Amino acid sequence: MSTQQSRAPERAVRVFAPATIANLGSGFDVLGIAIDRPGDVVVAHRISEPGLNFSVQTEHQDVPSDARHNVAAHVAHLMLNQLRPRFGIQMTLHKQMPIGSGLGSSAASSVASVVAVNALLDAPLPRRDLLRFAVEGERKASGAPHADNVAPSLLGGVCLIRSYDPLDVISIRVRNTIVWVVVHPHLVVRTHDARRIMPRHLPLKVAVRQWGNVGGLTAGLASGDAALVGKCTEDVVAELARADLVPGFHEVKRAALQAGAHGCTLSGSGPSMFAVASSMRAAMQISKAMTHAFARHARVPCEVYISRVNMHGARVYTIPQR
Amino acid sequence: MSTQQSRAPERAVRVFAPATIANLGSGFDVLGIAIDRPGDVVVAHRISEPGLNFSVQTEHQDVPSDARHNVAAHVAHLMLNQLRPRFGIQMTLHKQMPIGSGLGSSAASSVASVVAVNALLDAPLPRRDLLRFAVEGERKASGAPHADNVAPSLLGGVCLIRSYDPLDVISIRVRNTIVWVVVHPHLVVRTHDARRIMPRHLPLKVAVRQWGNVGGLTAGLASGDAALVGKCTEDVVAELARADLVPGFHEVKRAALQAGAHGCTLSGSGPSMFAVASSMRAAMQISKAMTHAFARHARVPCEVYISRVNMHGARVYTIPQR
Repeated sequence: MSTQQSRAPERAVRVFAPATIANLGSGFDVLGIAIDRPGDVVVAHRISEPGLNFSVQTEHQDVPSDARHNVAAHVAHLMLNQLRPRFGIQMTLHKQMPIGSGLGSSAASSVASVVAVNALLDAPLPRRDLLRFAVEGERKASGAPHADNVAPSLLGGVCLIRSYDPLDVISIRVRNTIVWVVVHPHLVVRTHDARRIMPRHLPLKVAVRQWGNVGGLTAGLASGDAALVGKCTEDVVAELARADLVPGFHEVKRAALQAGAHGCTLSGSGPSMFAVASSMRAAMQISKAMTHAFARHARVPCEVYISRVNMHGARVYTIPQR
Repeated sequence: MSTQQSRAPERAVRVFAPATIANLGSGFDVLGIAIDRPGDVVVAHRISEPGLNFSVQTEHQDVPSDARHNVAAHVAHLMLNQLRPRFGIQMTLHKQMPIGSGLGSSAASSVASVVAVNALLDAPLPRRDLLRFAVEGERKASGAPHADNVAPSLLGGVCLIRSYDPLDVISIRVRNTIVWVVVHPHLVVRTHDARRIMPRHLPLKVAVRQWGNVGGLTAGLASGDAALVGKCTEDVVAELARADLVPGFHEVKRAALQAGAHGCTLSGSGPSMFAVASSMRAAMQISKAMTHAFARHARVPCEVYISRVNMHGARVYTIPQR
């Protein structure tokens, strides 16, 4: 018993995994950044019985509490099945983010879960090695194992998914001066639906324009150039197809630009929208203009989140044991 | 007469415009860098008779000496017709680069020409304003006003053509540590032919992979990361179509990688190929392996150029008047 305790078999952790802005407009499926808030929380501790004991606490409807359908439980199961620790895990997902927000809600749950499981292992994996489990949560949630939300939620910063086959995620060095305004209207867009309406083929000219913008986006993030980043959020591939899923999209975008945003488009597949600002002061003005436009043109209330890039990603807090 | 001389009406200039590596693999039509050598030279001076008096000096065949067909004369005409100075220009193009080399030969001629004309004006335009004239040389040469050679030859450094409509060229800040190996085999690929075989449409998945690489290329250039840049030269769009135009392509690429290159593919539309090296020493090894492979598999001799990015672009030298 004393030996067991020195190895902290009953230790417990609380993990916060942040929301993310994927795509950033032109960087469809390849770019994502972590922001400070919102995020999902997982609390977990070891139990002697092997396997997963899973529950959900949330105010949001539509969050599956059944472990078979919840992404957090799914990825925890995958990890436990593969790594086979000699103990089990009791896990509670505090689901704070609504599903279908465009802020990487499923990614935050998956990341919080894998980071929590990892923190409880005797020999935790390097954080990057958790990516392959976390993307499986995305596959379950939307049918596609896209990594542009899970990577920044897990690793923090700006992540470039250079390749999916094999998965190659690059953390881009940035000058973290740009202020990101995120407005989440009380609407739901299913990632699955948003992916289905994407075109299967692109004219070469359209693709060239998109990768010109991706290059500018990356260069602008590296140098902290809000004007360049804003301009390069221009998305000639996904925005056209997806904007119609978000009532008020065009009016909100126009309001943001008029209020001084350097660029504005969908966060992920929407309905949340983000804008690029040069300062906190500008960000406040822009967020007001955007929420006002959503209220007026879509008749929905919004949450607003303003932050620089969250360079830390998921955070682990050890909970003192009684 | 003394007043005229103080305004230097007879001044003469010599302009060197450097070769360029366009595309850099994945950055088809959007990325280009200037290198130190080779390049084209224009010598020009004012004459009292308005209009252009044009001649060519070259060892290369296929270079049109007729002013109606030469890109340098074409862009000089455009500038003179639009700006209408009260004098004319006597211009000699010293055509040092072969046509169809994949090193931006037509761009170097156009750039040297517009920079020379500009240097002779009483009120020269800002250098960036010369881009719109120089791209017209590309339109004449290949049918497409692509800017990924003329921009770096004119401005130096790494240029991103973010947009063609309107033309938006961004000079990317780079850590200039990467060494570029360029091997020019004595073969000719017509840019026009190389463009014609490009696919008109891309599967979305292919386009996403390409813009993931463009993002990595830009990030790697910004931070001076040769390994990242090399990896991201991966080109899933143009290389497949164009490699067959260059005998020995696959063997030369393999030889470069085996000799330590981080990446290797076509410069522009070929036949020249470039490789990414971490040091001058590595570059020497790589260039030997590449020329050997060209000699063995395509039975052609090569020129080799090794340099870092040329941050200056076209250079103007004033010629003392007798």
